[in-house]
Amino acid sequence: MRLLLVGDIVGSPGRKALCEYLPRIKRAKRPDLIVVNGENAADGRGITRAIAGEFFGMGVDGITLGNHTWDKREIFDFIDDEPRIVRPANYPEGTPGQGYTHLRFSRGELVVISLMGRTFLSSLECPFRTADAILKSLKENVPVLVDFHAETTSEKQALAWYLDGRVSAVIGTHTHVQTADERILPGGTAYLTDVGMVGPYDGILGMDKDLIVKRFLTQLPVRFEVATGKVQLNAVLLDLDPATGMASDIRRIRIDDDHPWFD
Amino acid sequence: MRLLLVGDIVGSPGRKALCEYLPRIKRAKRPDLIVVNGENAADGRGITRAIAGEFFGMGVDGITLGNHTWDKREIFDFIDDEPRIVRPANYPEGTPGQGYTHLRFSRGELVVISLMGRTFLSSLECPFRTADAILKSLKENVPVLVDFHAETTSEKQALAWYLDGRVSAVIGTHTHVQTADERILPGGTAYLTDVGMVGPYDGILGMDKDLIVKRFLTQLPVRFEVATGKVQLNAVLLDLDPATGMASDIRRIRIDDDHPWFD
Amino acid sequence: MRLLLVGDIVGSPGRKALCEYLPRIKRAKRPDLIVVNGENAADGRGITRAIAGEFFGMGVDGITLGNHTWDKREIFDFIDDEPRIVRPANYPEGTPGQGYTHLRFSRGELVVISLMGRTFLSSLECPFRTADAILKSLKENVPVLVDFHAETTSEKQALAWYLDGRVSAVIGTHTHVQTADERILPGGTAYLTDVGMVGPYDGILGMDKDLIVKRFLTQLPVRFEVATGKVQLNAVLLDLDPATGMASDIRRIRIDDDHPWFD
Amino acid sequence: MRLLLVGDIVGSPGRKALCEYLPRIKRAKRPDLIVVNGENAADGRGITRAIAGEFFGMGVDGITLGNHTWDKREIFDFIDDEPRIVRPANYPEGTPGQGYTHLRFSRGELVVISLMGRTFLSSLECPFRTADAILKSLKENVPVLVDFHAETTSEKQALAWYLDGRVSAVIGTHTHVQTADERILPGGTAYLTDVGMVGPYDGILGMDKDLIVKRFLTQLPVRFEVATGKVQLNAVLLDLDPATGMASDIRRIRIDDDHPWFD
Ligand SMILES: [Fe+2]
Ligand SMILES: [Fe+2]
Ligand SMILES: [Fe+2]
Ligand SMILES: [Fe+2]
Ligand SMILES: [Fe+2]
Ligand SMILES: [Fe+2]
Ligand SMILES: [Fe+2]
Ligand SMILES: [Fe+2]
Repeated sequence: MRLLLVGDIVGSPGRKALCEYLPRIKRAKRPDLIVVNGENAADGRGITRAIAGEFFGMGVDGITLGNHTWDKREIFDFIDDEPRIVRPANYPEGTPGQGYTHLRFSRGELVVISLMGRTFLSSLECPFRTADAILKSLKENVPVLVDFHAETTSEKQALAWYLDGRVSAVIGTHTHVQTADERILPGGTAYLTDVGMVGPYDGILGMDKDLIVKRFLTQLPVRFEVATGKVQLNAVLLDLDPATGMASDIRRIRIDDDHPWFD
Repeated sequence: MRLLLVGDIVGSPGRKALCEYLPRIKRAKRPDLIVVNGENAADGRGITRAIAGEFFGMGVDGITLGNHTWDKREIFDFIDDEPRIVRPANYPEGTPGQGYTHLRFSRGELVVISLMGRTFLSSLECPFRTADAILKSLKENVPVLVDFHAETTSEKQALAWYLDGRVSAVIGTHTHVQTADERILPGGTAYLTDVGMVGPYDGILGMDKDLIVKRFLTQLPVRFEVATGKVQLNAVLLDLDPATGMASDIRRIRIDDDHPWFD
Repeated sequence: MRLLLVGDIVGSPGRKALCEYLPRIKRAKRPDLIVVNGENAADGRGITRAIAGEFFGMGVDGITLGNHTWDKREIFDFIDDEPRIVRPANYPEGTPGQGYTHLRFSRGELVVISLMGRTFLSSLECPFRTADAILKSLKENVPVLVDFHAETTSEKQALAWYLDGRVSAVIGTHTHVQTADERILPGGTAYLTDVGMVGPYDGILGMDKDLIVKRFLTQLPVRFEVATGKVQLNAVLLDLDPATGMASDIRRIRIDDDHPWFD
Repeated sequence: MRLLLVGDIVGSPGRKALCEYLPRIKRAKRPDLIVVNGENAADGRGITRAIAGEFFGMGVDGITLGNHTWDKREIFDFIDDEPRIVRPANYPEGTPGQGYTHLRFSRGELVVISLMGRTFLSSLECPFRTADAILKSLKENVPVLVDFHAETTSEKQALAWYLDGRVSAVIGTHTHVQTADERILPGGTAYLTDVGMVGPYDGILGMDKDLIVKRFLTQLPVRFEVATGKVQLNAVLLDLDPATGMASDIRRIRIDDDHPWFD
């Protein structure tokens, strides 16, 4: 089975880029399931019901989130009713929404788990133990994709090694920059430190670069805005063995002005 | 002119990997100048005079450092006498060592500047203004390589955009994971968020993975050790226009078990 | 000469408490000059021109700020025109407003310097060196009050020892909790780690306690609001020798339901 | 019943100060139980079996710890065998040692719980929920002292309000500076943001001030050492109603050169 994971989609430029490129990627690569990280989809902060619907309308099967999950207040109105959206599973008990979900397609199913790192982020439950608990509840050999939304490379690599052989893939999100370290760990788990983002190519993490540079220079509060102009799309393609759930291939996708997509 | 920048070299596995692959890269790519980040060269923490000598003996022209600069106390004994080693330039006035240096080769010269980010790191001087001050003191059009040792992708991208058109390249170090976002910015500055590391392939940032996983799981203090086994080498190759100092090409180098090097 | 420094005034409860108690403190203690920290005066975040005017109308001579300086955008419209307001002096060059000011009264003058710590706060210039530079520009023996707005006790104590004998007093703000460690250091500088706040007594740092507890419990974003109900006022009284500028006495003032003020 | 809690004891100066003043405090105040925070007792970092024995020999009934719990490696050899020592209860399951303990005296008992904050500290379990779980396991109305070892005033106040009416007292440690905000909350829980330290009076948090100032100035790694010279002792005295476990009185004790102790 083939799985496409698309990184943090930033604002309307990100949604437009997805709309433009997803059909072409689908035609060329024929993924069985498509998962996107939607934490920045609405103006760079959070997601709305309408935008989630937009994604599902494009053929997206599941949406993961991250530290920006709650930025649009309407999330509290719909997250409990939408089983295809997952927020980090290591938020404390009682948090709205769900931390993992089962996605089904004609020939099988996939469990998608969202987890968030704690280093330089929120004081959540231990992501390692949360993963253990979820995996324990699943039936054996089901393919499992972990979107690990974390800041540091050390926490990301640590979770990947910890879960090696127990999940199909650990793919990082959050830094908005694709890393070049895709590999299959010895136990069969595909790993990529960060899948990168979808949205403006000439911004800083998708946001207007002048505003962010200004903030670094002045240390004054600056209201960030999504950048405009050219776009980029970063994603990763995973081939999983449906019998064992383990990965047989991992390939990065990078589309931008310097790396145009050819059908 | 062609420049090779090799990422954070971790411990003796990193030094051995450099020793093995550098001659082959030199033969194949013929860089005019070679710069390595040496902040983790001695047991993963700091650098010694002997190890610096080892690097120079292999044909390395310059060594950059980072937050681990001072981990081996003997650094204070030799950093002031070695003009080919640079520590972050935005340490406060009075700090031993130098923040930038001129490297010369048959057909020209290169200025190497080391800077360190402040987000989640030390409270140093502003790296943006420090860069301004150094650049102001340089003669026009001299090629300049900035090694920006920083944690977050936002601070790294911000400095790159800030210096675009004013330096040859801004290349990140510190996360030990190579990013896939190499590009030449509109003003002619080559950029890569992180060049990655040299050292153990099956560790976490080059350190023993079991120890680091244990620390995340237990939150107890754990003494990290350099990992053993297979190695990786991550580097970046830059082609600069000697007339303008601007970049004409940037290519990542990734060597590991999954990506063997073929001469 | 006698100086009264009043801690972070939080919202309208803080302003009302000041309005109620300041006349009584003035009658009883007869300070020559009154300085208040106003960074939380407007709804807990920032300060407006009208509120600053309110303070001056009550007899306040100078207003210090902190990390919340810029929270109300209108600050940019008036901070440059109001010499009695100081924001942290170690914001980078070019920042609106001023970092220190001269306050005058019938029998003398006082320099008030605002500085901000960097540990767990913004990446500002070095507060130690900024203090050095300001002091160098002042005439000898002028009394100097430093409001050091910082998070950690170590950074606060370090600056106090660093400036001991060179300024009249280093008084901390920002934690909103008065500390009990008032003393005069060997060189003659009065020191208090934190002067505490003015505002709600049954909140958390002056904000509604249920909201803040909720944030700790859920790790969800919560919009804080100023608490209501009973109030507290925390301040410190300093006696300075006008000839040397050094401190001869430091006394804390704590007024709340459990410690009522008796004229 | 009367309880004495003594703050973080720093190194041999702290132990000597305790040895000198504890008998005098006992004579004057006649506490039923004495608890000390021992996380800095050995050279400023951690505690040894011998030092714990020293404390018990002086009449100390229980020892709490904090983020420095594990700094001396021998702690792992004895913490499981010593029921009178508690480390933060919100370390993850499987951590050596215990998070709370029952101390008994002639006329009753006291439960001592150690908890650690997460803001700017380690990624531990939620201290609020950990407290809930421990309290649920205790019999009703037993007096409970919580030592909350935390950095920020907001997290400390939040836990106190959260536990108000359910424990006898929430007393903060870790900042090494005594706060002046002692009070009894409406539900009957005594609260003090920080009890302060025991050890050198002219250091920074008990450590040599020149070394710490140097670290702030240079941002270089500096090996801290316990300061020498004059000492201070900070503690808090609590009167609890043995029937309800609630607090009837809380009084701070501050002993130093400026506040000598008179029997
Ligand atoms: Fe994101
Ligand atoms: Fe994120
Ligand atoms: Fe490194
Ligand atoms: Fe580093
Ligand atoms: Fe404040
Ligand atoms: Fe503040
Ligand atoms: Fe301590
Ligand atoms: Fe501590």
